Amino acid sequence: MIIDFLADYYQNIENFPVQSQVEPNYLRKCLPDSAPNNSEPLEKILQDIKMDIIPGITHWQSPNFFAYFPRSGSIAGFLGEMLSTGFNVVGFNWMASPAATELETIVMDWLAKMLNLPKSFLFSGGGGGVLQGTTCEAILCTLTAAREQILSRIRRESILKLVVYGSDQTHFALKKAAQIAGINPNNIRSITTTKSTAFGLSPDSLRSAVISDVEAGLVPLFLCATVGTTSSTAVDPLGPLCDVAKDYGIWVHVDAAYAGSACICPEFRHFIDGVEGANSFSFNAHKWFFTTLDCCCLWVKDPSALIRALSANAEYLKNKATDSKQVVDYKNWQITLSRRFRAMKLWLVLRSYGTANIRNFIRHHVNMAKHFEVGDDQTVLEEGSANELNRKLQESVNASGRVYISHTVIGGVYVIRFAVGATLTDYPRVENAWRVEQEHARSILTTF
Amino acid sequence: MIIDFLADYYQNIENFPVQSQVEPNYLRKCLPDSAPNNSEPLEKILQDIKMDIIPGITHWQSPNFFAYFPRSGSIAGFLGEMLSTGFNVVGFNWMASPAATELETIVMDWLAKMLNLPKSFLFSGGGGGVLQGTTCEAILCTLTAAREQILSRIRRESILKLVVYGSDQTHFALKKAAQIAGINPNNIRSITTTKSTAFGLSPDSLRSAVISDVEAGLVPLFLCATVGTTSSTAVDPLGPLCDVAKDYGIWVHVDAAYAGSACICPEFRHFIDGVEGANSFSFNAHKWFFTTLDCCCLWVKDPSALIRALSANAEYLKNKATDSKQVVDYKNWQITLSRRFRAMKLWLVLRSYGTANIRNFIRHHVNMAKHFEVGDDQTVLEEGSANELNRKLQESVNASGRVYISHTVIGGVYVIRFAVGATLTDYPRVENAWRVEQEHARSILTTF
Repeated sequence: MIIDFLADYYQNIENFPVQSQVEPNYLRKCLPDSAPNNSEPLEKILQDIKMDIIPGITHWQSPNFFAYFPRSGSIAGFLGEMLSTGFNVVGFNWMASPAATELETIVMDWLAKMLNLPKSFLFSGGGGGVLQGTTCEAILCTLTAAREQILSRIRRESILKLVVYGSDQTHFALKKAAQIAGINPNNIRSITTTKSTAFGLSPDSLRSAVISDVEAGLVPLFLCATVGTTSSTAVDPLGPLCDVAKDYGIWVHVDAAYAGSACICPEFRHFIDGVEGANSFSFNAHKWFFTTLDCCCLWVKDPSALIRALSANAEYLKNKATDSKQVVDYKNWQITLSRRFRAMKLWLVLRSYGTANIRNFIRHHVNMAKHFEVGDDQTVLEEGSANELNRKLQESVNASGRVYISHTVIGGVYVIRFAVGATLTDYPRVENAWRVEQEHARSILTTF
Repeated sequence: MIIDFLADYYQNIENFPVQSQVEPNYLRKCLPDSAPNNSEPLEKILQDIKMDIIPGITHWQSPNFFAYFPRSGSIAGFLGEMLSTGFNVVGFNWMASPAATELETIVMDWLAKMLNLPKSFLFSGGGGGVLQGTTCEAILCTLTAAREQILSRIRRESILKLVVYGSDQTHFALKKAAQIAGINPNNIRSITTTKSTAFGLSPDSLRSAVISDVEAGLVPLFLCATVGTTSSTAVDPLGPLCDVAKDYGIWVHVDAAYAGSACICPEFRHFIDGVEGANSFSFNAHKWFFTTLDCCCLWVKDPSALIRALSANAEYLKNKATDSKQVVDYKNWQITLSRRFRAMKLWLVLRSYGTANIRNFIRHHVNMAKHFEVGDDQTVLEEGSANELNRKLQESVNASGRVYISHTVIGGVYVIRFAVGATLTDYPRVENAWRVEQEHARSILTTF
């Protein structure tokens, strides 16, 4: 019944407005205010999902979803999640389900090879990979590892002097991780980028910021460099940034949450050139790698730094395999103890499609995005009114429910983002989106 | 095919050793060392799962699994996870999928009522609930909220003086969260418990520890009280502990990860008496509430404390609903931005079974555990050799693969834990487990 229900959902997905059009608190009006005392039949629950839940869903799997970064679900990812849920094992350490840990180490090595990551990130090269939930966790774990590494060498009181660096385009995950990790809020640097570097972080700007912090008696700790920023997919130049970081002993994490997937194609691999100088690297298989939420792939060169920072132990988890030091206990690589068998879905995706097909899916998306590409608008509009028009255009398009797009503000300009990455998107849908935007733009300009 | 595969798996689950018997690195020998270039058929993948993966799985869903705390998966939980995976929405804020957020607020209120939590934990009472992945996250989030609340009132330099409290039975999640949150490692108190309080934390011991810290110029911050400790399901007395905490402005988090589920039964509700004095409360629906991993239910009285500590924002997430302050944006209640639609599976569980049946499932488990209960051993054995015999007994039973049990050390005694909670466990399996343990005990005592 559920399979049929979901098949119908995907069949009809374009009949729903892509962005949900409900008002706040709509659902409280539909549902009772306490749990039922007696069991209810699945038919009734599915009927309620149809009537009450689906209208409140923004359809991330719709082929007309171009907002944020789409999430490319897939049948293989879905089947993998079913298997993982069916086994419902808890792989906190090797012992608790050896296959869950071992498959993860294997799949992470496979992926690292597809990305042509330096051998030092692979288990065979002394590093290793781990599946986290999201990039926020990957950044928090690596930041904590970096913090403990440095605090073991200097006085713990220096925690107040530690400084983390990103650009004004870095995902707010960095700020959030720094807040959680107890970094002084005054020491979170958001270095200005400009159009001249296509909003990439300039190594010179980083060096200036670091020098001025060092002169002020502060201690540079961590740089989050981004390959594919959320606002505009800007790429920070990894090589030169890592060179600066090296001079000051700064841990470099590369956040390639979205764009990392593309780097499995040789023609896009250059975006992560220089990653060999970084300490850690992550991308989200749940964004643009056909794996359902959540699945963030993180590699580190020095797992012992993570393990020193994140280990905690208890008698009831002691076992011979751990004592033998022959196994990976992933609980020491992450925030939580319990962990799902995420490697299963990634393995299903990799095997069901194979490297060649996954590369071609990604190329197909890139080509569709190029097809849509809008040249510089030659119309001379005052910047303020352009911003206002863009905002109106976005709202009007989204209210139509036909396509869903999101926005950002970059360099003071209100920008409409158009991200191609949903699995079901094809050329006709991209062309339709272009027509929808034109229609709405014309109608807005008429009344302007 | 996957449904059939999983149905067969459950049909045959007792043919596999409960605890996997593989050796470290067994799987590298079975699998290729890089991802396939071309797509492989599902039949082949499922065959490999049967041959290579299942032998490496410890069967948490087996009716003979009595180790750690079992995870009670269920059909309803599984179907809910399928729906959530099928929709694959990302509910970081209300706007991104209103139904995901609103269903979560409703289900959390339903559950709070089932637990008879004070109204102050419900949305209608100014508090509110959120689904986290695990208790580790719940503790890290509430600890960070407590830390920021106090650091906003005193100098930030005082971060080095903050002290967190638990007992020597508290889950190591507290230590791990404190490490991540930058709490001084010297300020993590693990207060000794004894058999005289059944290993519950004594309010007098807490008060002494707090007084001595205050006298030393330190700042008491956070108490993690446990209802149902991992080693022995000890219960910390919430009321008197909250009284002590109140005198010193300490944030009290109640970790009822495992035992919390039972408190939906009126006859077990007394274990959380006094929770009205706490700031936050969590239990894991993925442990003993028929919901698959992961699903930790956290309630707080003051959501604004979480929001102040965990908020970070970006232009691309700005929207009118957030600006209206009429909606909950869960990204500010947790570590990560992206989040799965976990409320779906909890809703399916609550509706498919109904409160009355869920209470009866839990009572059934409690009665089976009572049925197994072992009285004090009257045999006089030197403590050291008893410990050694228990360890041997556990290893021998687990190596048989017939049942799986785990251990702890409590008050210097090596204890075999026997936890009833797997969904498929019934009286015959519990009696069988007792026979298996007796057989192995006899055989060990013969050679002793």
